[in-house]
Amino acid sequence: MQTVKMAVEYDGTDFSGWQFQKNGRSVQAEIERALSKLLQEEVRVTGAGRTDAGVHARGQVCHFETKSVMDAKSILRGSSALLPQDIVVRSVEFTKQEFHSRFSAKARMYRYYISLAPTAVMRRYRWYVSYALDVSAMQRCASTICGEHDFQSFCKEQAEVKHYRCIVAKAEWKVSGPDLIFEITANRFLHGMVRALVGTMVEVGRGYRSEADFTAICAARNRSEAGMAAPPEGLFLEEVFYE
Amino acid sequence: MQTVKMAVEYDGTDFSGWQFQKNGRSVQAEIERALSKLLQEEVRVTGAGRTDAGVHARGQVCHFETKSVMDAKSILRGSSALLPQDIVVRSVEFTKQEFHSRFSAKARMYRYYISLAPTAVMRRYRWYVSYALDVSAMQRCASTICGEHDFQSFCKEQAEVKHYRCIVAKAEWKVSGPDLIFEITANRFLHGMVRALVGTMVEVGRGYRSEADFTAICAARNRSEAGMAAPPEGLFLEEVFYE
Repeated sequence: MQTVKMAVEYDGTDFSGWQFQKNGRSVQAEIERALSKLLQEEVRVTGAGRTDAGVHARGQVCHFETKSVMDAKSILRGSSALLPQDIVVRSVEFTKQEFHSRFSAKARMYRYYISLAPTAVMRRYRWYVSYALDVSAMQRCASTICGEHDFQSFCKEQAEVKHYRCIVAKAEWKVSGPDLIFEITANRFLHGMVRALVGTMVEVGRGYRSEADFTAICAARNRSEAGMAAPPEGLFLEEVFYE
Repeated sequence: MQTVKMAVEYDGTDFSGWQFQKNGRSVQAEIERALSKLLQEEVRVTGAGRTDAGVHARGQVCHFETKSVMDAKSILRGSSALLPQDIVVRSVEFTKQEFHSRFSAKARMYRYYISLAPTAVMRRYRWYVSYALDVSAMQRCASTICGEHDFQSFCKEQAEVKHYRCIVAKAEWKVSGPDLIFEITANRFLHGMVRALVGTMVEVGRGYRSEADFTAICAARNRSEAGMAAPPEGLFLEEVFYE
């Protein structure tokens, strides 16, 4: 058996998310279908992050095992040809047996894109916010989450999680033309964490909550304290980092 | 009667083009429908440039006349609310009676976006070119079209045109990450001109034609000499300039 590492980009708009679902078009199922057809065997892929419905990825990483002797370049070309247009294979490489896209990952980087002007062209990839935002206040909130913290207040109910501590290496807002971009790198992310953080910081930027409220929410360890989740279309899984 | 100038952005993917067509969804018809409903009168709009099917615009300008006394801000908000998501009104202003979006325009700027890597997220807005391109050769071709020239070789048959001379103020290729962008500003554009220029320059960049061929094509004044038109999805009408 050969372990294969694959990096993929996808437009999450028309997917019910990364993970296989009975009723819904998932990225995982599309990739498994393409690889199974190409390699003429039943292939199961595991992704580094389970993106929700509508969330995009430029650098999702997954792995699978195969008995096939097809070379990496042919797998890249063959699977690309069999996949729908909203999934693109960026790279394919053979890796060591024990590699696991999720458990071997050291960190992940997400970006959340807000547009401060309405946009037709980018409407599938931006959250359009029509009100003024105090970006400095949002940046101060972001600074407070750097380092190791408990993020239970920003996590959807998740039975399989043993604890809610994440180590945030970077959390930063920046302005780029009409866009406001939140970039966050951490060792792990809880379910719905980036969208809950963005939604809550936007409430601070809008003046609905204070910076002190944000600090109190972080300390509360209770999801009901935090703000609304920002909509999925602004979120991109940009990169997964390994050793 | 009041003359109103309106700037719009649209995603051309699901349109048969700017101009009204009996069988097809046009940007013009959508805008006319929204304005007619809002202003409670039959509104006809005229655009600065008639973009083809699949071509996008970030800065299309149109004008219309109205008997309504509604203020500009209300027209902007009201029409935005009535338009589909793939059209966004960027600005509305009252202007002088003799203003004409097309004839008053001094110049237009288009950008054509090529992606040198396959992309899922930007697939509606890029021409993906999978082969290597000699960008320097393409840039030298672009330099030769600056100034006043006859562009008949890059024009689809167009009965209403008296001559094919255009004054090109700027024509430039630049690299931006995985993208190769062609930016061209001219006083006027002939039907299909940018896509024919891009398609032909890409043939030079690919080595299918020489730079001397490109010069000969320009001199030939015959569309059949030029290369294939680049696909519509990479083209954006970015801006229309007035006095």
